[in-house]
Amino acid sequence: MVNETLSHPFLLQAGDLNVDDISLIFEKARFYLQKFEKDTKKLEDLKGVTVALAFFEPSTRTRLSFELAAKRLSADVFTFSSSTSSLTKGESLLDTLKTIEAMGVHMFVIRHSCSGVPNFLQQNTTGIVINAGDGKHEHPTQALLDAFTLHRYFGDIKGLNVCIVGDILHSRVARSNIVLLNTLGANLGLFSPGTLLPPKIESWNTRIFNDINDAIKWSNVVIVLRLQNERMESGLIPSVREFSKYFGVTYEIYSKKPELVLLHPGPVNYGIELEYTVSNYPNVLIQTQVTHGVYIRMALLSLLAKNLS
Amino acid sequence: MVNETLSHPFLLQAGDLNVDDISLIFEKARFYLQKFEKDTKKLEDLKGVTVALAFFEPSTRTRLSFELAAKRLSADVFTFSSSTSSLTKGESLLDTLKTIEAMGVHMFVIRHSCSGVPNFLQQNTTGIVINAGDGKHEHPTQALLDAFTLHRYFGDIKGLNVCIVGDILHSRVARSNIVLLNTLGANLGLFSPGTLLPPKIESWNTRIFNDINDAIKWSNVVIVLRLQNERMESGLIPSVREFSKYFGVTYEIYSKKPELVLLHPGPVNYGIELEYTVSNYPNVLIQTQVTHGVYIRMALLSLLAKNLS
Amino acid sequence: MVNETLSHPFLLQAGDLNVDDISLIFEKARFYLQKFEKDTKKLEDLKGVTVALAFFEPSTRTRLSFELAAKRLSADVFTFSSSTSSLTKGESLLDTLKTIEAMGVHMFVIRHSCSGVPNFLQQNTTGIVINAGDGKHEHPTQALLDAFTLHRYFGDIKGLNVCIVGDILHSRVARSNIVLLNTLGANLGLFSPGTLLPPKIESWNTRIFNDINDAIKWSNVVIVLRLQNERMESGLIPSVREFSKYFGVTYEIYSKKPELVLLHPGPVNYGIELEYTVSNYPNVLIQTQVTHGVYIRMALLSLLAKNLS
Repeated sequence: MVNETLSHPFLLQAGDLNVDDISLIFEKARFYLQKFEKDTKKLEDLKGVTVALAFFEPSTRTRLSFELAAKRLSADVFTFSSSTSSLTKGESLLDTLKTIEAMGVHMFVIRHSCSGVPNFLQQNTTGIVINAGDGKHEHPTQALLDAFTLHRYFGDIKGLNVCIVGDILHSRVARSNIVLLNTLGANLGLFSPGTLLPPKIESWNTRIFNDINDAIKWSNVVIVLRLQNERMESGLIPSVREFSKYFGVTYEIYSKKPELVLLHPGPVNYGIELEYTVSNYPNVLIQTQVTHGVYIRMALLSLLAKNLS
Repeated sequence: MVNETLSHPFLLQAGDLNVDDISLIFEKARFYLQKFEKDTKKLEDLKGVTVALAFFEPSTRTRLSFELAAKRLSADVFTFSSSTSSLTKGESLLDTLKTIEAMGVHMFVIRHSCSGVPNFLQQNTTGIVINAGDGKHEHPTQALLDAFTLHRYFGDIKGLNVCIVGDILHSRVARSNIVLLNTLGANLGLFSPGTLLPPKIESWNTRIFNDINDAIKWSNVVIVLRLQNERMESGLIPSVREFSKYFGVTYEIYSKKPELVLLHPGPVNYGIELEYTVSNYPNVLIQTQVTHGVYIRMALLSLLAKNLS
Repeated sequence: MVNETLSHPFLLQAGDLNVDDISLIFEKARFYLQKFEKDTKKLEDLKGVTVALAFFEPSTRTRLSFELAAKRLSADVFTFSSSTSSLTKGESLLDTLKTIEAMGVHMFVIRHSCSGVPNFLQQNTTGIVINAGDGKHEHPTQALLDAFTLHRYFGDIKGLNVCIVGDILHSRVARSNIVLLNTLGANLGLFSPGTLLPPKIESWNTRIFNDINDAIKWSNVVIVLRLQNERMESGLIPSVREFSKYFGVTYEIYSKKPELVLLHPGPVNYGIELEYTVSNYPNVLIQTQVTHGVYIRMALLSLLAKNLS
């Protein structure tokens, strides 16, 4: 291995990663996956490193995935959220971060409901910030694990047709995936109600579909997004039932092309964006994504930690 | 040691355990107890194993007891509850469990206010589920630690007269104890207000007492249950004061037979089911139960983990 | 090192520590600081020791500081608070503590909104209790880290003029600092609105200032306290703005004597007791205090743990 350093000592958005960075992360993730699928149960790559998980939105899978990743490499992990911290005393998030840094913690995994919080924090500390999802902005480790799942399935991502289905407008997962898959040379399509497409979509280098049959015919992969309940309340879709009818992936549709690879960032709203029976098809890789998520985060933490010593 | 495997790769209810299983757990618990009472502070029997504690009801003692048990054997532990997890996004508990399993976690300690949740989860996953208390159904590790406490005190449980006192109807502790102590050959008695006795009690192979003096005269051991505050509100007892007068264990009653062994699953409502002064008698083994609880859970986790590799 | 034992097997208030105790803690803290600033990342001084962090008030910095301190010495740490524990079932705090003790946990770090809770608990258990802040009473580890910061800066504390500025009446930090700095031979001053000065102040052996210019002229060090929002609501100060004008440390004031060392226990209300621009001066040691806090707590935990074996 020639060079084991990422271009940036942080990960705020998918655009921070070039092709070499992504290769490095995938190689390391594959290394860990093979070790742990054999008989390794614990490594010491992060022994003595403390990772702070600052999650200001409820989360099971992302928080836990980072926690397991860090602990399998023997890091110390501590979690804090606004409800249990001094933030209720009116302290600013940045002050909290600087305080934690002064205690000797240098890796921060941040989830926040406001877009841009991780970027703001990175600009004001010398610590390593990892974005674990910020508002409607980005969720770069999700994009990494999605791409890693496709990489392991197809061997190469270049030239793959990948269509993202659902609420693109509010999805940080979509945003990160579009950037990362573009970097890796995939062709991107979007299929979404017009009210849930972002403005200025032209600059994104994507193909827009208006019919699910066309979208699926074109695709090697669909990434189905979660429909947030709030969307309907805000009048952006007429009803969940109608969304489901025109934009949901049903058994009827999927059974026509079962070789289609289907990803979903989870948790799935079964019966809304995805019919439950579809989830049993072998090319529906939702559980594999979850498994890969831990290895991707192990790889990322371990590569970024090289900037600490 | 001929065979170190339990009959089932899970523990959902006391009925999952036969006499050999119980002996195996007691032997292992005694082994750990003796090691840690000497000078051992930490073992590595569960190194690299991750134990998920999913507690959907408030709990200090059971959660902590499992956490300490797992950590003393060098397991990684992570806790999650509905308030901090994606369950608030409407994800089903089963989906959450499957997600955690996909991340490589295979031991789940579950507490839930609904009876049957651990059974449902076990039927739908390949992970190891341990019931840490489900609704009014069962609390098998409490029964194990109670029996272990009696086993160490009396040498043998066979033929002991054990009377359970209090709110039998709503008590998962009572249910698990009745099954386990029956398996071990104890004679069981119940003393409870009629409204707090379960229906179809005849099939349980127990003796019903109507007077506390008769009950105590007959017993070698009483297991005093906690009176839940909700009971009075629901009209099942006329008043806490009356319950306490007729069904509480007072100094006056206990001092007539201080050789009587008294257990209580905790936390005690002093002044309701048990007078405070009673708790200082040497045969009141409430603190010993707590101590044994950790060793029983160490034994159980370690024996069940044999199914992982 | 002749003797490595503190006078008391607990730390409830600054008065528990004599000059030798403080020297011992400082020496140990310096030892850890030097080891970790070089290349050590983890020691095993507390391996197999479980530290319970019982925090009944929101806290980031103190809780985290203890958690990091314990984990860097390889202790097991578990946290509990009233919201996640059986305390919601009506169990008394003392019962909870005794239960945890019966499980084999012997070190308790307690924060509570009621003054005297740590003292009460210590009197009723054989465990080691450390006061991490109780009501308006004391916060002895804060005083230790403040004094350690001054010790490292000045070499010696004896004869230093230290003025505490702000809400003395409600401040446990002030109370602990006054006692500890008196023990170490500093001269103490207070500068505070009359309504926020405690009664019977004469017995404290301090000088009272009525003008910020006099106070600063006299001082080698000022310890600026946090103004709790509740104070104004309770009518003790006319308005935050007026408090800030007469009792806040502004750039204008501080720039006249930049050699003045300034401490603050954090989190700072910038713009109220301290102007933001002041915080960039090199003798404003707020971040250093935080860093030292971890080493002071490592030293304390490790010295107190000698009473366990």
